Amino acid sequence: MSDYMRKGALLIISAPSGAGKTTICRKLLARRKDLKYSVSCTTRPPRPGEKNGKHYFFLNREDFKRKIQRGELLEWAMVHDEYYGTPRHFIEEQTKKGLNVIMAIDVQGAMSIRRKHPAAILVFVLPPSMDELKARLAGRRDASEVVAKRLANSRGELAAAKDYDYVVVNDDLATAVEQISCILTAETLKTSRLDPSSASFVTALA
Amino acid sequence: MSDYMRKGALLIISAPSGAGKTTICRKLLARRKDLKYSVSCTTRPPRPGEKNGKHYFFLNREDFKRKIQRGELLEWAMVHDEYYGTPRHFIEEQTKKGLNVIMAIDVQGAMSIRRKHPAAILVFVLPPSMDELKARLAGRRDASEVVAKRLANSRGELAAAKDYDYVVVNDDLATAVEQISCILTAETLKTSRLDPSSASFVTALA
Repeated sequence: MSDYMRKGALLIISAPSGAGKTTICRKLLARRKDLKYSVSCTTRPPRPGEKNGKHYFFLNREDFKRKIQRGELLEWAMVHDEYYGTPRHFIEEQTKKGLNVIMAIDVQGAMSIRRKHPAAILVFVLPPSMDELKARLAGRRDASEVVAKRLANSRGELAAAKDYDYVVVNDDLATAVEQISCILTAETLKTSRLDPSSASFVTALA
Repeated sequence: MSDYMRKGALLIISAPSGAGKTTICRKLLARRKDLKYSVSCTTRPPRPGEKNGKHYFFLNREDFKRKIQRGELLEWAMVHDEYYGTPRHFIEEQTKKGLNVIMAIDVQGAMSIRRKHPAAILVFVLPPSMDELKARLAGRRDASEVVAKRLANSRGELAAAKDYDYVVVNDDLATAVEQISCILTAETLKTSRLDPSSASFVTALA
């Protein structure tokens, strides 16, 4: 291993509900030791199988508002009438150590993060088609009005894809995971991320 | 396979002599069918084993100057008192077909290409250290004054690394090849390269 120093990165994954971002994040985390997951906070109720502190920090509205007031959230937003937010501390701690952080957040959240971290890498995951997206959403055990609402929202979110740095089509899961892993690798090789204070880099260029 | 259309890319590899760019290009071409090598023209004499039309088009000075006059070169420059240039036709032909083109050229050439193709991807390959670079250059059977000249030139070229999009350290060959392949994959996933005229992309965002 060479010791040219490189800065860490913040990888943001957004996708319409049902495009597969949760599974993609899990697969990426399993394969890359340099990647840590930023757990979001939300006031929405847990779905079956979701664990507090792993999938989300599930908070009541009062606790969520308190976090906003204390400045503990990097960004927050209201989506489908529920609060969602990103804890600030974990991200700062991990990136300080030189680790990369991944988070799965919605379009509003991603744009907020970009304003605060211009170097954040924004990846939008597209479903292979609207038909496929409908089929995946219907497969979840949510009430039909929730599915309909989420589908309508997904259409709106798709239009935001063009504001992201990268677009990955989740046609084949393994390919999508490989592509996002490549995006992270490539981004860490960007000249703009090389730490100019790295002793060996300075020596090499001397 | 999805049919969201993506534009091809032009991948430029530069490196100080001896950093391993020729081997890296060969390995990349062996592994990616979507990648074609742009053979440069030069007036320098072939090294042992180099084939005309494969490693370079070896031209005499008169023929080289004629190509310049006819506008057949995308860029050209004089390096180590020899002419080097990039034929225009091959690149246009391949990228029109949607294929990616790779070329190994020097710093002057890379900067010329960037002016003409702002979307070109510029990758600089760094040797793991100056000592390693010296060892590799000395291993070639060139005259010692050629080696010394090339080493002096390499030091100058290293300073240009910061003007490239990506910096890859050729510490371990397989890793360097994997990283450059990732850079190409990531670049083709950039939102800015999605062809907005692609029917399926428009449909997906409708």
